[in-house]
Amino acid sequence: MNKKINIGIIGFGVVGSQVGLILHRKKRIFSCYNGVDYQIKKICEINWDTSREWLPPEELRTHNYEDIIKDPDIDIVVELIGKFQPAYSIVKRSLESGKSVVTANKYLLSKKLIELITIANKHGAYLGFEASVAGAIPIIKGLKESFSANRITSIIGILNGTTNFILSSMTRKKQHFTQALTLAQQLGYAESDPTLDISGRDSAQKLAIISTYAFHCSISDDEFLIEGIDKIEQQDIEFASELGYRIKLLAIAKRVDNSISLRVHPALVPYGHMLADVEDVYNAVYLEGDLFGKSLLYGEGAGGRAAASAVLADIIEIGKKITSKAHFSEQFTIEQKIAIQPVDKIESRYYLRFTAVDRPGVLAKIAEILGRNKISIASVIQKGENPENAVPIVMLTHRAMEKNIRSAIKEIDRLFCIKNQTQVLRVEE
Amino acid sequence: MNKKINIGIIGFGVVGSQVGLILHRKKRIFSCYNGVDYQIKKICEINWDTSREWLPPEELRTHNYEDIIKDPDIDIVVELIGKFQPAYSIVKRSLESGKSVVTANKYLLSKKLIELITIANKHGAYLGFEASVAGAIPIIKGLKESFSANRITSIIGILNGTTNFILSSMTRKKQHFTQALTLAQQLGYAESDPTLDISGRDSAQKLAIISTYAFHCSISDDEFLIEGIDKIEQQDIEFASELGYRIKLLAIAKRVDNSISLRVHPALVPYGHMLADVEDVYNAVYLEGDLFGKSLLYGEGAGGRAAASAVLADIIEIGKKITSKAHFSEQFTIEQKIAIQPVDKIESRYYLRFTAVDRPGVLAKIAEILGRNKISIASVIQKGENPENAVPIVMLTHRAMEKNIRSAIKEIDRLFCIKNQTQVLRVEE
Repeated sequence: MNKKINIGIIGFGVVGSQVGLILHRKKRIFSCYNGVDYQIKKICEINWDTSREWLPPEELRTHNYEDIIKDPDIDIVVELIGKFQPAYSIVKRSLESGKSVVTANKYLLSKKLIELITIANKHGAYLGFEASVAGAIPIIKGLKESFSANRITSIIGILNGTTNFILSSMTRKKQHFTQALTLAQQLGYAESDPTLDISGRDSAQKLAIISTYAFHCSISDDEFLIEGIDKIEQQDIEFASELGYRIKLLAIAKRVDNSISLRVHPALVPYGHMLADVEDVYNAVYLEGDLFGKSLLYGEGAGGRAAASAVLADIIEIGKKITSKAHFSEQFTIEQKIAIQPVDKIESRYYLRFTAVDRPGVLAKIAEILGRNKISIASVIQKGENPENAVPIVMLTHRAMEKNIRSAIKEIDRLFCIKNQTQVLRVEE
Repeated sequence: MNKKINIGIIGFGVVGSQVGLILHRKKRIFSCYNGVDYQIKKICEINWDTSREWLPPEELRTHNYEDIIKDPDIDIVVELIGKFQPAYSIVKRSLESGKSVVTANKYLLSKKLIELITIANKHGAYLGFEASVAGAIPIIKGLKESFSANRITSIIGILNGTTNFILSSMTRKKQHFTQALTLAQQLGYAESDPTLDISGRDSAQKLAIISTYAFHCSISDDEFLIEGIDKIEQQDIEFASELGYRIKLLAIAKRVDNSISLRVHPALVPYGHMLADVEDVYNAVYLEGDLFGKSLLYGEGAGGRAAASAVLADIIEIGKKITSKAHFSEQFTIEQKIAIQPVDKIESRYYLRFTAVDRPGVLAKIAEILGRNKISIASVIQKGENPENAVPIVMLTHRAMEKNIRSAIKEIDRLFCIKNQTQVLRVEE
């Protein structure tokens, strides 16, 4: 005799409609493999989009999420509406009433992960959120379970499909940023207001979630450096390529002494590094740990089906836990508060693109200021003679301190011969 | 109050000694994160290697594994001696007495996985075996849990570090097979008798284990095509490279109609495919599923610490399950027996290297036989004029049937102008 798990889905959008469809289609397979009957009890949506591949029958539909969170028969609430409210109350109230929750809401979790896990534990409920970071890639489960014996020393992720698609298009099709963004919007990979993705904020929310798990500490995306990709120009892509690099928006978390260097910014990644080959809307997470060494998890980071794959894995597993009548408290021990490394202390190689008038002595002047700031130059590209106009001078430095770079660039950008703000990008090897 | 889990380790070799060391060193961390005290109760080894980084105190040591499997206080038996017997009895008897087992024994599991899971279920015990395939890469957990909602359609793995190291050395250092093998042996990556690795058998055992999970059917490594890498010559590496490919030993499992095409053989992988960049002793598994699309899991496939990472993850998780007092039966539903596709029906592009006397009309003769067998040629490389001796002629075909290739090559190899057996390699795009 199979045990029954009742599911309420809140939000029938791109992900929710796929979760509904697949639960409906594969119910018998899931039941057969897991000994649990997974039943959709109710689906809540305000605007039913009748063009969806599958629409639930009338009796399963509601416009009011209270019908789900107050239904004593519902075991698992699947929250797929995103944003902060009412998602926060839905998740919190559901957990408080002992229901388990599966969510893909990175915004909410980047603010409230530990609070929500604590509530879940207190009420014997489970919180599943694999879908909140990197689609179907099992990074949450990886950190919680597969790599649990390790001390994680480094995480470098490509966590946002939209920006990776834009940078890929700029690289392969030699498009400008705005052209690539427009293409992404036309293909449905970018929203009409793409700020959250472009600015790096979406990646930062995801980084906060995985860092919380990787380093056993409470981290919010308000605490670290976030730079977006909107300042990347086509010429940066080309110069990087000439130097042997691709530009990627990276989410980085590394242990450095007793702190963690946490940041989201575009960076030059050398050809041959596996992250350099992650193209289009794909995501990847590169990890280092004291036992497993180096690892890469790669997969689709966007799209309804990939996210549904992760949501359903959580539903299936939580269903098994609930029907086993055990309770696994997720002991989430917060380590002694770990400091986030101040931005000034970042150490990296840097890509610098100066826009300078093409006159003798300019390069010497720039080099002198860099030298005085303890920045040594690894290579220089200076192209085209054009005494009338400003030309780009590109430099790759050896390892330098962010503090010194900032102070040097401030001084250089005040020079009479410098015509535009200097482009500064970090290099991640 | 933490609950205590007693662990017995059988085998204190490369992996076992790391598991012991890390349990000893990190006990407090594991306990703090999981609410369970993981205690080593006994370690069994016949020949104690006193040069190990850590040696257990006298009172933990035994020469007799009966001291572990008969100890009623031991909850988890960690079997790390490998091979078939006595490992099989140890695992079986432990499970029958209700003890859970963690093992890295791919040989044993490739023969007895379903039997052992069934015994574990019957006696309320757990069987953990993440370490048996691809070291620390979470491929077992991926298939069992993270991708559980998917229908897996394709798996292509680089599952053997030794052969990947040899092929990498042949590619990068232009070494011959025997030179690369000797180097691998000197570095400790290959055993003095390397047959199990070189022949593809080790990869096949691992493929049998993951295929059993991916396709929910009983598969043994005796049932499918296995070809090793010993026939790969330096010139094949060079020709492949000229054509835009790297040669890798692949373990392949693909759904084709109502059957599974299962095989282990060296294959040409095009540059740009993520598997082409997996170098040295690293392993990777490339997967396709109906929901998650494409995914790659990459990491260290060999070495004591990487395997220990996987063994410890299993120990930690099983410890949590045992102390929760629940029992999760691993419902392992065997699908209606799925047929393994006969070798003759493999369809692929092929790399053919003929060794032919350099005389007019030879190419025409070969092409005629191929054409008659419905094999069309995509490209040809014919190098060096040498009317005295045989020269290589390399062809890349369009998609063809294995049956037709075999019959054509049989005919071609009988030609007077053909001086050596033709090299036939499949292409995996």
